[in-house]
Amino acid sequence: MPEQSSPFRVNNFSAGPSSIPLEVLETVQKDFLNYNNTGMSVVEMSHRSKEFTRIFKEAEDDYRSLLDIPDNYHVLFMQGGGTSQFAATFLNLNASKVINEKQAKSSKPLKCGYIVGGVWSKQAKDECSKLGGNVHIIADCQDKATGKYTSVPPASSWDIPPTNELAYVYYCDNETIGGLEFNSDSVFPHFDSSIPIVCDISSNALTRKIDVSKFGIIYAGAQKNMGPSGLTTVIVRKDLVEKISLENPSAIPSHNFPSTLDYSFFVNGGFMPHTPTTFSIYVCGLYFKYILKNGGISHMNNLSIQKSSMFYDLIDSNPNFFVNPIDKKYRSRVNCVFTLKDPSLEKEFLDQATKCGFFEIKGHRSVGGFRASFYNAISVDQVSSFVSFMSDFIKNHS
Amino acid sequence: MPEQSSPFRVNNFSAGPSSIPLEVLETVQKDFLNYNNTGMSVVEMSHRSKEFTRIFKEAEDDYRSLLDIPDNYHVLFMQGGGTSQFAATFLNLNASKVINEKQAKSSKPLKCGYIVGGVWSKQAKDECSKLGGNVHIIADCQDKATGKYTSVPPASSWDIPPTNELAYVYYCDNETIGGLEFNSDSVFPHFDSSIPIVCDISSNALTRKIDVSKFGIIYAGAQKNMGPSGLTTVIVRKDLVEKISLENPSAIPSHNFPSTLDYSFFVNGGFMPHTPTTFSIYVCGLYFKYILKNGGISHMNNLSIQKSSMFYDLIDSNPNFFVNPIDKKYRSRVNCVFTLKDPSLEKEFLDQATKCGFFEIKGHRSVGGFRASFYNAISVDQVSSFVSFMSDFIKNHS
Repeated sequence: MPEQSSPFRVNNFSAGPSSIPLEVLETVQKDFLNYNNTGMSVVEMSHRSKEFTRIFKEAEDDYRSLLDIPDNYHVLFMQGGGTSQFAATFLNLNASKVINEKQAKSSKPLKCGYIVGGVWSKQAKDECSKLGGNVHIIADCQDKATGKYTSVPPASSWDIPPTNELAYVYYCDNETIGGLEFNSDSVFPHFDSSIPIVCDISSNALTRKIDVSKFGIIYAGAQKNMGPSGLTTVIVRKDLVEKISLENPSAIPSHNFPSTLDYSFFVNGGFMPHTPTTFSIYVCGLYFKYILKNGGISHMNNLSIQKSSMFYDLIDSNPNFFVNPIDKKYRSRVNCVFTLKDPSLEKEFLDQATKCGFFEIKGHRSVGGFRASFYNAISVDQVSSFVSFMSDFIKNHS
Repeated sequence: MPEQSSPFRVNNFSAGPSSIPLEVLETVQKDFLNYNNTGMSVVEMSHRSKEFTRIFKEAEDDYRSLLDIPDNYHVLFMQGGGTSQFAATFLNLNASKVINEKQAKSSKPLKCGYIVGGVWSKQAKDECSKLGGNVHIIADCQDKATGKYTSVPPASSWDIPPTNELAYVYYCDNETIGGLEFNSDSVFPHFDSSIPIVCDISSNALTRKIDVSKFGIIYAGAQKNMGPSGLTTVIVRKDLVEKISLENPSAIPSHNFPSTLDYSFFVNGGFMPHTPTTFSIYVCGLYFKYILKNGGISHMNNLSIQKSSMFYDLIDSNPNFFVNPIDKKYRSRVNCVFTLKDPSLEKEFLDQATKCGFFEIKGHRSVGGFRASFYNAISVDQVSSFVSFMSDFIKNHS
C-alpha cells in the first residue's frame, strides 16, 4: 500500500521522460505486486493473456476517444520512439499503394516534402534522405544568422511542388528543443487534400484538439504527455496501409524494410505482432483514463493556455531580464525556452531554482539557456509557483 | 510501503513477459513514487539526468559482470525486441567493414548462414531474405513428417559453405516455442573462428554460462529472464561496428537503413542516442543485481539443471501420460513443452492446474499442447510443486 502521508515530490519540468500525475503513479504502485487479483505484477503478464489484451484494447479505445479518431484510421502501439518513426513514416508511405499508384503516373520521382521547424523535423528529413527518399524542403524555419528556429516563414514564400509531384508533407507540430509550435491550421490549408500530411505530435499530444481526419499519419512518443518511454502511438489512415490477406497472421509481410517498422506488420498481425512494451502501454492507459475523467482534451487545452500565458506574460513584462526568442504566434505552450538577458546570472538562477524545488529546467545541450516543459501532468499551481520564483528573482536583482 | 503480509502470487510459467523475483518487484514498488529521494518516480526522470545515467551505467556494468563480457565487445540497450534484431543483425553485418572487405575479395555474393532450430530462427531467416540477404540454410531442424523442430541434424549433414563464401552464421540458442535448446558447443566448433556467430539468447540468457569471446553478436529480449519487455540487450564485437568520428555526436550515421536499428548509431551516439525504455532498463538493472547477489550465472545454471531435471524425470518416468517430443540432448531447460498421451484429458489437466495456481501453461498457439517456462525467477520449489501436481494427476487417472 502507498504511504499514508504525501510523498516528497519536486516540480519536474523535464522535457521527457517527464512528470506523470501522482494519482496514476499511486495506482501503479498500489497494484504493482498483484494486478487485479491475478497474483502477478502487470510486468509479469503474458502480452497474450486475457488481462493484458483488455489493457491493450482499453488503451486504444481511450486514445481513440480522447483524440476523436475516425474509424478509417488505425491506431498502432509501436516501439522505438520518434526516431524510429523518422524512418517508418517514409518507408511505409514509400511502399504504400496510394503513393506507388501516384508515382506510376508521374515521369519524375515524387518529392517527400519537409517543413523544417527545428532539430526533430530536421532529423526526420535527414533520415528520409539517408534511406533514399527524394527530400524536398518546403520551408526551413532556421534563422540563418542565429542558427535558431524562431519563426515560420510566410506561406507565400514556401516552395510547394505541384500536387502531382508531391508524395507527402511532413512536419513536427511542436519542436521540443527549440520551443516552436505550429498548429495544424498553419500547415494543411496550403496543400491539396489528397496529399498525406505526416505529423509528429510527440511533445504536444493530448494538450490540444487536432482534426485527425486531415492527416495521413500522426505519431507521438509517449514520454512527454502520456506516460513512460517505450511506447510510440501511431495513427495512420487505413488506405495508406496494405491489408494483406494472410493465411498465417504471424507471417512477415513482403516489404523490403524491417518488419517492426512496418505498419502492415502490425495491421496484419492483429495489432500486436510481437511483444510490445507492456508496462508503458499499461501506464499510458491509466493516464488516458485520468485525462478522460478530468475533462478530456478541451480541459487540457484550457490548462495549457493558462499555464503558458502565465509564463509568457512574466517573460514579456520583463524584457530586461528574460528573453524568449520565438515569434509570439509560434511559441510552444509546452516547451517554454528562455535565456537571461544577463548571462552572468544564469548559474545563480539555476542554483536558486533547484533550491526552491524546480528541476530539469536547463535547455537542451544543443541550444543552452533554459527550458521549462509544462506538459499535461504539470499543474497550473506548479507553473504559478515557478512564475513567482522568477518574479522574486527579478526583484532581488533589480 | 509494501504490504506487511505476503502478496497473493500464483505460479506464473509464462513464456514471456514472465515472472520477476518478488524482491525486485518489491523494490520497484517501494521506490516508485520517489526514487532515491529525487522527488520523482523513476519513470518521470529524464534519461539524461544524473540519476538515470547512473542506473543505465550500472545496468551495463552488472550485465558485463554476469556474462563476463570482454572489453572488445560493446553492450547496447535497444528497443524493438528480438524481432527487430532479426533485421538489425543482418543489416549491421551487411554494412560492416569486416564483411565488406571480405565481400570485395569474393567473386560471389557472400552467404548469410542460418541454422533453423524453430519458429524464431526461421523468422530471422525470412527477415534476412526479405531485406535482400543471400540466405543459405546450413541446417534445418524441422521434422518434415511432423512439421515440428525436435532435434538437430548431425553436423556431418550440415551444408557448410567454404569460409570465404560465408558472411556469418545465425542461430537461436533456445527456441521458446518449440522447446529445443542448443548449447554453443554444438555450433561454433564447426566454423572457422573468423566467421561471426550471431546468437539469439532471448529465452535462456543468464541461465547458463556462455563464452562471449566466441561470438560476433549475442542479443536477448529482456522479458524472459531479465525483466519487463521493452529492452533488448545486444552484445557486439567492436570490430563489427564502425566507429565514426563525428563532430556532432547526435548526427545520424550514413548507413542506408533505419538509425534505431543501427549499432553504430548507438556506439557513436554515446550508447543512448535516443530516449530508451527507461523503466525496463531500471528493472533489469535490479534483476541483474539480484542474480549477482544470489550466486551469479553459475548458481542460475545449477538451479536451471535442478528444475529441468526434476520436470523431465517426471515426464520420462511416465511415458504413458506425458510426452516431450524433443531429442534429450536438445531439450530446453527453460521452455518445457509437453502433451498428454491422451488428448481427451488436456482440458481437465488445464482446469486442475489453474485451480491449483499454475498459470500460463498452454503451448504457443502455433503448436498447441502445453509449455511450462522455468526462467530464472521460477524457484525450485515452484517446479517441485508443479511436478507433484502432475504426479497426482497421474495417480488420479491410473
